[in-house]
Amino acid sequence: MSTKRDFKIGMVGYKFMGKAHSHAYKDVGMFFDLDVNVYMHTICGRNEQAVKQAAEQFGWEQVKTNWKEMVEQPELDLIDINAPSDMHKEIAIGAIEAGKHVLCEKPLAMTLKDAKEMLAAAEKAGVKHGICFNYRFLPAVQLAKQLIDEGRLGEIYHYRAQYLQDWLVDPNAPLTWRLRKEIAGSGAHGDLNSHCIDLARFLIGEFDEVIGQSQTFVKERPLIDQPDQKGAVTVDDSTSFLARFKNGAIGTFEATRYGTGWKNGNCFEINGSKGSIRFNLERLNELQVYFTDDDEHVQGFRTINVTEPVHPYAGHWWPAGHIIGYEHGFVHLIYELINSIVHDRPFAPSFYDGVKCQQVLEAVDRSIAERTWVKVDEVE
Amino acid sequence: MSTKRDFKIGMVGYKFMGKAHSHAYKDVGMFFDLDVNVYMHTICGRNEQAVKQAAEQFGWEQVKTNWKEMVEQPELDLIDINAPSDMHKEIAIGAIEAGKHVLCEKPLAMTLKDAKEMLAAAEKAGVKHGICFNYRFLPAVQLAKQLIDEGRLGEIYHYRAQYLQDWLVDPNAPLTWRLRKEIAGSGAHGDLNSHCIDLARFLIGEFDEVIGQSQTFVKERPLIDQPDQKGAVTVDDSTSFLARFKNGAIGTFEATRYGTGWKNGNCFEINGSKGSIRFNLERLNELQVYFTDDDEHVQGFRTINVTEPVHPYAGHWWPAGHIIGYEHGFVHLIYELINSIVHDRPFAPSFYDGVKCQQVLEAVDRSIAERTWVKVDEVE
Amino acid sequence: MSTKRDFKIGMVGYKFMGKAHSHAYKDVGMFFDLDVNVYMHTICGRNEQAVKQAAEQFGWEQVKTNWKEMVEQPELDLIDINAPSDMHKEIAIGAIEAGKHVLCEKPLAMTLKDAKEMLAAAEKAGVKHGICFNYRFLPAVQLAKQLIDEGRLGEIYHYRAQYLQDWLVDPNAPLTWRLRKEIAGSGAHGDLNSHCIDLARFLIGEFDEVIGQSQTFVKERPLIDQPDQKGAVTVDDSTSFLARFKNGAIGTFEATRYGTGWKNGNCFEINGSKGSIRFNLERLNELQVYFTDDDEHVQGFRTINVTEPVHPYAGHWWPAGHIIGYEHGFVHLIYELINSIVHDRPFAPSFYDGVKCQQVLEAVDRSIAERTWVKVDEVE
Amino acid sequence: MSTKRDFKIGMVGYKFMGKAHSHAYKDVGMFFDLDVNVYMHTICGRNEQAVKQAAEQFGWEQVKTNWKEMVEQPELDLIDINAPSDMHKEIAIGAIEAGKHVLCEKPLAMTLKDAKEMLAAAEKAGVKHGICFNYRFLPAVQLAKQLIDEGRLGEIYHYRAQYLQDWLVDPNAPLTWRLRKEIAGSGAHGDLNSHCIDLARFLIGEFDEVIGQSQTFVKERPLIDQPDQKGAVTVDDSTSFLARFKNGAIGTFEATRYGTGWKNGNCFEINGSKGSIRFNLERLNELQVYFTDDDEHVQGFRTINVTEPVHPYAGHWWPAGHIIGYEHGFVHLIYELINSIVHDRPFAPSFYDGVKCQQVLEAVDRSIAERTWVKVDEVE
Repeated sequence: MSTKRDFKIGMVGYKFMGKAHSHAYKDVGMFFDLDVNVYMHTICGRNEQAVKQAAEQFGWEQVKTNWKEMVEQPELDLIDINAPSDMHKEIAIGAIEAGKHVLCEKPLAMTLKDAKEMLAAAEKAGVKHGICFNYRFLPAVQLAKQLIDEGRLGEIYHYRAQYLQDWLVDPNAPLTWRLRKEIAGSGAHGDLNSHCIDLARFLIGEFDEVIGQSQTFVKERPLIDQPDQKGAVTVDDSTSFLARFKNGAIGTFEATRYGTGWKNGNCFEINGSKGSIRFNLERLNELQVYFTDDDEHVQGFRTINVTEPVHPYAGHWWPAGHIIGYEHGFVHLIYELINSIVHDRPFAPSFYDGVKCQQVLEAVDRSIAERTWVKVDEVE
Repeated sequence: MSTKRDFKIGMVGYKFMGKAHSHAYKDVGMFFDLDVNVYMHTICGRNEQAVKQAAEQFGWEQVKTNWKEMVEQPELDLIDINAPSDMHKEIAIGAIEAGKHVLCEKPLAMTLKDAKEMLAAAEKAGVKHGICFNYRFLPAVQLAKQLIDEGRLGEIYHYRAQYLQDWLVDPNAPLTWRLRKEIAGSGAHGDLNSHCIDLARFLIGEFDEVIGQSQTFVKERPLIDQPDQKGAVTVDDSTSFLARFKNGAIGTFEATRYGTGWKNGNCFEINGSKGSIRFNLERLNELQVYFTDDDEHVQGFRTINVTEPVHPYAGHWWPAGHIIGYEHGFVHLIYELINSIVHDRPFAPSFYDGVKCQQVLEAVDRSIAERTWVKVDEVE
Repeated sequence: MSTKRDFKIGMVGYKFMGKAHSHAYKDVGMFFDLDVNVYMHTICGRNEQAVKQAAEQFGWEQVKTNWKEMVEQPELDLIDINAPSDMHKEIAIGAIEAGKHVLCEKPLAMTLKDAKEMLAAAEKAGVKHGICFNYRFLPAVQLAKQLIDEGRLGEIYHYRAQYLQDWLVDPNAPLTWRLRKEIAGSGAHGDLNSHCIDLARFLIGEFDEVIGQSQTFVKERPLIDQPDQKGAVTVDDSTSFLARFKNGAIGTFEATRYGTGWKNGNCFEINGSKGSIRFNLERLNELQVYFTDDDEHVQGFRTINVTEPVHPYAGHWWPAGHIIGYEHGFVHLIYELINSIVHDRPFAPSFYDGVKCQQVLEAVDRSIAERTWVKVDEVE
Repeated sequence: MSTKRDFKIGMVGYKFMGKAHSHAYKDVGMFFDLDVNVYMHTICGRNEQAVKQAAEQFGWEQVKTNWKEMVEQPELDLIDINAPSDMHKEIAIGAIEAGKHVLCEKPLAMTLKDAKEMLAAAEKAGVKHGICFNYRFLPAVQLAKQLIDEGRLGEIYHYRAQYLQDWLVDPNAPLTWRLRKEIAGSGAHGDLNSHCIDLARFLIGEFDEVIGQSQTFVKERPLIDQPDQKGAVTVDDSTSFLARFKNGAIGTFEATRYGTGWKNGNCFEINGSKGSIRFNLERLNELQVYFTDDDEHVQGFRTINVTEPVHPYAGHWWPAGHIIGYEHGFVHLIYELINSIVHDRPFAPSFYDGVKCQQVLEAVDRSIAERTWVKVDEVE
């Protein structure tokens, strides 16, 4: 019944991220006022049966098993890439060369070099390009950004990030593809620290130098197909690093899949000369803040329920105190990306942010190999 | 593309609840495996322009301005009533008499007598009937119920409920329809205590007797159309009551719109001979539990992140630790209701639960008027 | 080595409260600058061996087994009464008539009538009289009082008090004297609600009317001396009540010894037109506050660590963040009481506060018996 | 009145730590059953007037201004050294050579070399020697140790320590002695990380290698005597480091005086294959634990109120839920130390622990200077 023009999506991938992205395309128009009608046109995957099932479940109009065919469809406005990481580069460049705007899941690519090529291609083609650092778009994170930009934290001294999960604590958990370097590229570092790095860049700026350590606690795990045999875990279970930022702040970062009791603990804390901010993804509707200019006898960390109309995005959902969930961040991201395309405005996080994140990840890897500090800008 | 038969919904109402219900119909099939394809067929409201706008925004196929026409449509399977409360009875009975299954928002009716008539009609017609006590369907609340049923709390001693909001603290907030008895029926009592009462019945059983108090703190508020004039607030700002349950437990209940700092604090705590449970809707993904059979030196309230596959409904959404929001409770309710219709199984909360809740609400009202305890079963 | 004059204490009682008071006398001079030297002169109790042991352990100079002898000692400045409650009246009046200043543990007496007699005696004699409502003297409670007096909460709407303990949850816990009405006078009501009532009066003012309920969950318990036999529990396990205050605020109060998981949860929350306050004795170094005049996007409950030099009493102890414990409240009370005696200044809480508290307790008891609201001022 | 023999203390120092230690000597006998009577015999300091004032306030019998005279007094059993750090070595060795048992505040010495000399002297003399790592003696920390020793955490993967304070956030705070290297030796590193290092060693064992970073955010501060002029801050404001432990665990450590909003946030978290533990000194009566062998649907971090009789030391104080404060840790330490002397049993933390802590601190310093990992055992 819509009188708006259709904005047609083609998406490669249909698993966890495919579901989260599909949900965002399905719901965005119900909660956000776009000038276009988001149309779930084509979903693409190599396994025809699986992708058909996904299309029915998620509500996509059409199925493809060859991404090249998909990106050639002239009616598509945006190509969304959440296929396995080792496919990102090829598909993204293919889509870009077909003149499409692109959204790519993180990590942008398997290497910094590949990521840079993707960025160059997108910039040359003049298309909009986004990377799916979804946590930037949570109301609490947006509020944190706003407070920092307002100067409410003063000069930034400390950035403290921890991304703690515990799904590998059981030594008998099987050797999934996520634990094999040739497929996953990296373990906790690429999967979790990438989010922490992007949030740090978003909130307080660029990294200067880093030094890290990695550990694989359980070296061998049961094979999925032959549980009585074991294979080697070839990625990190945990990677932590120290950082210096260009603005003089110092940071500590830690990612692990052995943080027993933590399910999705993407936490950060920022201490500045005028205030502090704390965030924990497991309570993503809350932001804790402290201000040194509060009256002296009533200073304390406030727990803000970031669901009021005055808070970023919150007014689009429910009345105050009616909290939102993990997937809502994707809705906000999709809303902003489509708006930026429709109105030809800049979008961030873009491939540039994907490149910068990759650079920090690789700098940490190099620092581990070389056992010394590495300047981020010197990693190429 | 679905091969399942369509299950067609007709809905009356399109505001806050209309949006929440629409979202549930839109998303349920993406996350839950139903044997039917949920089809958003007709939305109905008296203001044609507004309902058309809602239909476009929410994704309904067809618009009606007369609910009688809608309930006569033979293809509809379920009539969802979230129109203003004073319309519930008429529409529900109309739909029932047309042979439709019905879902009705709370309160079921304006009076206990009306509610009983609705229940009688539904039972006579043999249709499925549900009332939208959505909070029953949160994973944490379902887990609480499971633990009580497992006997993990032992004999129940205390039920402590508070539903605290603060949107009326500003004395200059206007005199909306919610503050006028002739339209809203009741204030904090009917709006908030109704949820507390239903949860208490769901979790620990029936009420025996009650005594309450009400207060209207700000007696007059600015008229919406003439803000320089004031009109009388004719509902309660806050109602609290003491209760005795049939199982020997005792309870305290409090609802207020003056709970400064609380946005949607629907909290309960249950103390039993073997354990305790605490819940706060502002952190609806968490349940706190305490067990006396834990080792003596490590007893303490646990904060369970109710997002693991082992938790009710949680496995349908995202991996552990990826929290869900307020609206997900509606999705679960809709899922259960449609399943109960498709498979002809009982559904609760039904109109019976609406009647029982209304009975407790009226018992409290009477206890306030008479300044003494009132037996709930004696209220008719 | 002190050059100050000695201020000599005589104390009746040597158990839990005797220990807490002794500690306060021992430590007060080390942390607070008094114009006198606190001298632990005489401790008195009926069991000579036990009181001698206490004297050695706690550091009292001299032992008496007859309180009458003790109060006649001319050198004593203050008589501290923490003997069993049924002895309070006789000893207090004896001490007063001997011209001594008196400090009495709560409850002041077994009945309102007795309490009034004690107050009359003290006022007639012109001595200083204090009742040991120690929780008034915690830094967080003092800060709460200060904020209310500063107007930071605006008009008070709600007072919500819960005193939750769980030491009776085990049905095989023995029938101690605390569970026998003839000795203890009352159960959770007198023991716990008395603290809640005093704090409410201290913080927001006088009660107008009340209605309550009581429950004894476990009616019989093993006798201490013959554990194979049982005796009747004759006090309340839990008492809750609704209240109206003279300033228009409404309240809910609940005390229980069946609050499974709570050890000493003396909690209150106050909601006003400009802010809210929350306190929990299990985290007595913290006060939570909310202000509606904070910037709209950063409103939230603050958790104040009440240990800064700017906070009441805190500067006398350790640097900020070095928390204090339960017993420190007694030190502050003793400090204030001795100061009031030495400088002839008023002291509160006095016997007057003991009387007012007793009046509310009895009003609740009467409301339970009569199943209707009782005006506090009409209880005599 | 005591029939026990006197155990006589001589103490050098009378400021913050002198007060905390004095309090412990004063109170220990009231709450703990020792075979001796603790006697506060001599307090020593260079400023006669100040030390006399301290003697009166804290309750010491005798005053000395020359520590050599004091340690020669034959009646003294224990010498307690909380003089400035640069005096520790000389006094400790003097006391040891006089045959005294010694307790020394942290840091044991200004250098690892000095610390080793002190240890050698004490071992040679066969006296008892203790270092005042008071936080080991908190009930929650003792419980953590007990749980680890019981195997409740399984294999240890992660140790995460943060000691956050904020008293230097104000750039106009003056240049106290703590900010001058020649006097304080170190900044946040020596002051705060020393506690974190000792707790880590106590709880999970020895360090293998480390790499760190330091920062001085505010390079110059107002001189105390000439506030219009500034002097250089010559210690670290913050030091963080990564660590590997000999048992395979990895660690992150951070100490800062710029942790805005934190007053005394000595926090640690330990993740193991079977459970986790969290502690925060600002809530020192609580320990959070998580166990993977809890029933799957009720796993969560428990908050244990470590005040039950079953908890370490807790039964000596007040009933359950009546919390204790910062200073109680010193009482426990003093109790254990005196017991170890009286009964000739080993005591820890001893000078050995002081040496090992110093070694880690210096390894971190060296890693910062050399920008690479340093093996702790290779630091001499």
